[in-house]
Amino acid sequence: MLTDQQILRIPGPTPIPPSVNRAMSQPMIGHRGQSTSEMIQDIRPKLKRVFGTQQEVMILTASGTAGLETAVVNTVAPGEEVLVVVTGAFGERFAKICKAYEIKTHVLDVEWGQAADPEAVKAFLKEHPEVKAVFATFCETSTGVLNPVQELAAAVKEESDALFIVDGVSCVGGTETKMDDWGIDVVVTGSQKAFMLPAGLAFVAASERAWVKIEANPQPRFYLDLKKHRDNILKDTTPFTPALSILFGLQQVLQLMEEEGLEQVYARHQLMMKMTRAAFQALDVPLLTTDDAASPTVTAVKPADFDAEAFRKIMKQEFGFEVAGGQQHLAKAIFRIGHMGYCSPADMLQAIAIMEIGVLKAGKEIELGKGVRAAQQIYLNEGKLAQ
Amino acid sequence: MLTDQQILRIPGPTPIPPSVNRAMSQPMIGHRGQSTSEMIQDIRPKLKRVFGTQQEVMILTASGTAGLETAVVNTVAPGEEVLVVVTGAFGERFAKICKAYEIKTHVLDVEWGQAADPEAVKAFLKEHPEVKAVFATFCETSTGVLNPVQELAAAVKEESDALFIVDGVSCVGGTETKMDDWGIDVVVTGSQKAFMLPAGLAFVAASERAWVKIEANPQPRFYLDLKKHRDNILKDTTPFTPALSILFGLQQVLQLMEEEGLEQVYARHQLMMKMTRAAFQALDVPLLTTDDAASPTVTAVKPADFDAEAFRKIMKQEFGFEVAGGQQHLAKAIFRIGHMGYCSPADMLQAIAIMEIGVLKAGKEIELGKGVRAAQQIYLNEGKLAQ
Repeated sequence: MLTDQQILRIPGPTPIPPSVNRAMSQPMIGHRGQSTSEMIQDIRPKLKRVFGTQQEVMILTASGTAGLETAVVNTVAPGEEVLVVVTGAFGERFAKICKAYEIKTHVLDVEWGQAADPEAVKAFLKEHPEVKAVFATFCETSTGVLNPVQELAAAVKEESDALFIVDGVSCVGGTETKMDDWGIDVVVTGSQKAFMLPAGLAFVAASERAWVKIEANPQPRFYLDLKKHRDNILKDTTPFTPALSILFGLQQVLQLMEEEGLEQVYARHQLMMKMTRAAFQALDVPLLTTDDAASPTVTAVKPADFDAEAFRKIMKQEFGFEVAGGQQHLAKAIFRIGHMGYCSPADMLQAIAIMEIGVLKAGKEIELGKGVRAAQQIYLNEGKLAQ
Repeated sequence: MLTDQQILRIPGPTPIPPSVNRAMSQPMIGHRGQSTSEMIQDIRPKLKRVFGTQQEVMILTASGTAGLETAVVNTVAPGEEVLVVVTGAFGERFAKICKAYEIKTHVLDVEWGQAADPEAVKAFLKEHPEVKAVFATFCETSTGVLNPVQELAAAVKEESDALFIVDGVSCVGGTETKMDDWGIDVVVTGSQKAFMLPAGLAFVAASERAWVKIEANPQPRFYLDLKKHRDNILKDTTPFTPALSILFGLQQVLQLMEEEGLEQVYARHQLMMKMTRAAFQALDVPLLTTDDAASPTVTAVKPADFDAEAFRKIMKQEFGFEVAGGQQHLAKAIFRIGHMGYCSPADMLQAIAIMEIGVLKAGKEIELGKGVRAAQQIYLNEGKLAQ
């Protein structure tokens, strides 16, 4: 096998574009100097467009989980009551963080692989009028579900005054996000998913309603205190030492996104999702989610007649190709393909062509090329959108 | 379209492996210091194995053409008579260099797309007993022909005392080369083809017979004087300043080749050739060469019912995918796919899947996925060899 080739198609981190790698290898500069300020000044409006907000998007040097914790400790006071909508492993993480702070945490459990139902959230809130915040996951990375956060936001607003807080880690930047228009109060994401960067930065934005709560919230916090972050980013700086090389990369990533056009970026992700799903459907290999609940950034496949782990092992050995396995009770039952960030329709055609070989070698009789053909047809029918 | 993605499948340069890029970005060191000597000491035996020779392989800081000129000025005296076997544009280059030095140059022209015939060379030499050197191209990059250099060497030896000199630029490192066993007197290659490096280094080895001629040759030369290069490489150094970063890269490339195993490297190239050819045959798109004459590193396609240039333009626009056009009289008639160096069967499946879309968009009705299937079947039947 060709050595030194890794084809990384896990749901984050994604491969890093060459120009971003070049940007990240710039020499270190002082993070309190003018060059860093100018870089942050350049980044701010572009990051707002990705979030669909007029609010400041704050940049924390931390991984995604710290972003989730930031949302919790800034918006919920000790002893308050919250609802966490759990559709998979990352929904559970929100609940765990809340419980760590002795917040009264209700959990609305949704079967893994299904999307959250706004009506169920409304019904829950009607029965629990003391809930002060509702937490949900935009793309549930563990299942490849894209939850309907716009509808969930509307449901929360209709039924309560609770803040609506969204973990957007594995999809913001790869799918349309209109934080302000949709009435989302806090959006969190990380650098290593659709942002095509190494892990190390978390991005958090909060609505005006959320800021009122954040200002008054007595919950102790220091590094994750959003007030400090906002005061500093308004002056084009950060309260603590930033991960400077990733910041160099972020500036270039945002530049690339603007060059491609955000609408085109989102259309490309939709196209890759449809190509991937059409391929497995053509090969008669079941998907975990319905088309309606599917995420444009990650697809979970649940093979019925071959072993998911054997398949992953074959793909790694033969092609240096890596997809993710399942988590928790889906640990050996599914595999998950990331198609986000630095990933193109051409990359998905490659992934599908070699996965057909993997499926065959894992023991399922298939017509070779059939999945590729289905994906090619999607590309030909819908590819215009992503041009 | 995803910005910042280029899929380079021209017949050189090829993409560069990540570890080679990292090696090349090491800080500069003194090229007369011990670290450089140790590096050259490490490189020497590995380079000999790739050439299939016990002789020294000399490393010139120059592109491939300078390597060809080195072969000419070192082995042929002014006024001597030579034969150049021309199977395409790079054979012609050898002839041009000879003529520039006022060498009496015979040309044996072979139709582009066909391989040289050892019998024709024998017949020519029988009629021209004064020929002192025969020049031939191993892989003719302009047509994707692999000339039978082993048989040509035997034919030359059988019929004359002429030196047999081979341009191996676009295949040495990607196809088995046994310079000593096959009786080749000079082999030349460059860094930007199967060696997976940027252009900038040329490699030249000469047989004992050739060295006798080189030592005595009155042809004026300085930078390209192989005697200087041999005297220096025997002391683990170079006569002139070397392209140090490419030398760093070369050390890593040779390490990768040894890790994969040279036999496996060659089997991988054979496999990629067969996959590519099977795909176009399945799609009923004509190839320029027969299977017997085909090179494991480059395939020339000669479409009958769509426009090669339109196809190339579509591929570039839609996928950032680049194949080469034809040269000279084949300028708009063919396109050429490089499958050498840092290129895997998975890369060829990607290339084929997207080229099917390009063929369709260029106007030829095809069954989508059919070329991919043919290539997948080759992989399944023959892939073991390349593992």
